[in-house]
Amino acid sequence: MTSDGAGCVVLFTGLSGAGKSTLAQSLTARLIEAGYRVEILDGDAVRRELSKGLGFTPEDRTENIRRIGFVARLLARHGVIALIPVIAPYRALRAEMRAGTPTFFEVYVNAPLDVCEHRDPKGLYRRARAGDLPHFTGIDDPYEPPDAPDVECRTDLEAIEICVERIWSKLMAHLEHA
Amino acid sequence: MTSDGAGCVVLFTGLSGAGKSTLAQSLTARLIEAGYRVEILDGDAVRRELSKGLGFTPEDRTENIRRIGFVARLLARHGVIALIPVIAPYRALRAEMRAGTPTFFEVYVNAPLDVCEHRDPKGLYRRARAGDLPHFTGIDDPYEPPDAPDVECRTDLEAIEICVERIWSKLMAHLEHA
Repeated sequence: MTSDGAGCVVLFTGLSGAGKSTLAQSLTARLIEAGYRVEILDGDAVRRELSKGLGFTPEDRTENIRRIGFVARLLARHGVIALIPVIAPYRALRAEMRAGTPTFFEVYVNAPLDVCEHRDPKGLYRRARAGDLPHFTGIDDPYEPPDAPDVECRTDLEAIEICVERIWSKLMAHLEHA
Repeated sequence: MTSDGAGCVVLFTGLSGAGKSTLAQSLTARLIEAGYRVEILDGDAVRRELSKGLGFTPEDRTENIRRIGFVARLLARHGVIALIPVIAPYRALRAEMRAGTPTFFEVYVNAPLDVCEHRDPKGLYRRARAGDLPHFTGIDDPYEPPDAPDVECRTDLEAIEICVERIWSKLMAHLEHA
């Protein structure tokens, strides 16, 4: 196996608190151990580096995610597995990413809103409910669930290891033929 | 030779029309033939993909070039030689890029303003002189020449092949020890 044909983009989409970054990090550790090149394009980091000045209106979210997609595709072209844990709430935008990316996997990180809100790892739901964060996905901005994700993980019902194993299997089925 | 340790960032800085893209493209062809991974982050393309809404004020130019630098470093981290043909007129910003990049080469693509203006490949000088393009480098925005570039090419006096050969030698001296 060489990593040359491994380049691909893996979008982890789901509500804030659904477990997107946790899954991406766990998968990264396993991929690196196996010798793959991996990069996590974390939503917060990319906003800081590439999207200063953009907010959370639908137009700004769309522009932010398009930029992440551009960078992810550049990396994938050079053999990197680019993992993108971002909410990516709009179906049309995810479809656009898929259409523009030679090898693309959509992982639906699914947990009910009340579970995510109860977890509230960054305290964002509390601030959104208090009216401090307008356009918050699940509260006053929609999340459109994927119709046909490549992988679905129910993080309220399944252990992280089970979820990672399912994503891993999907990737390996591709990578072993790359 | 493997390309794994080859990752680096090469900034081609100079006036519009100095020959930055021409040199970057010519170097790219030679690097690809030799088996390296290469990506040109062209200023115009990156503006379209990452910097919609940014103009040409010093603040906006700085932000645009920081974004290009972020993407170039990501690519370099994965073994890619990232070539950046952009004007990058400010000394402090180029110093910031160098400081933030593990392996960085500054190529000063040097031709006098009157030569660049006579070439005017995109018709931009004409528009700038007519007042249609405010903040145009060399006309009403400064170009601060590098004090100590890694390579300098006088594109008004030297043939492209000579310039590319000089950059190539500089890169190879690094890559053969990587």
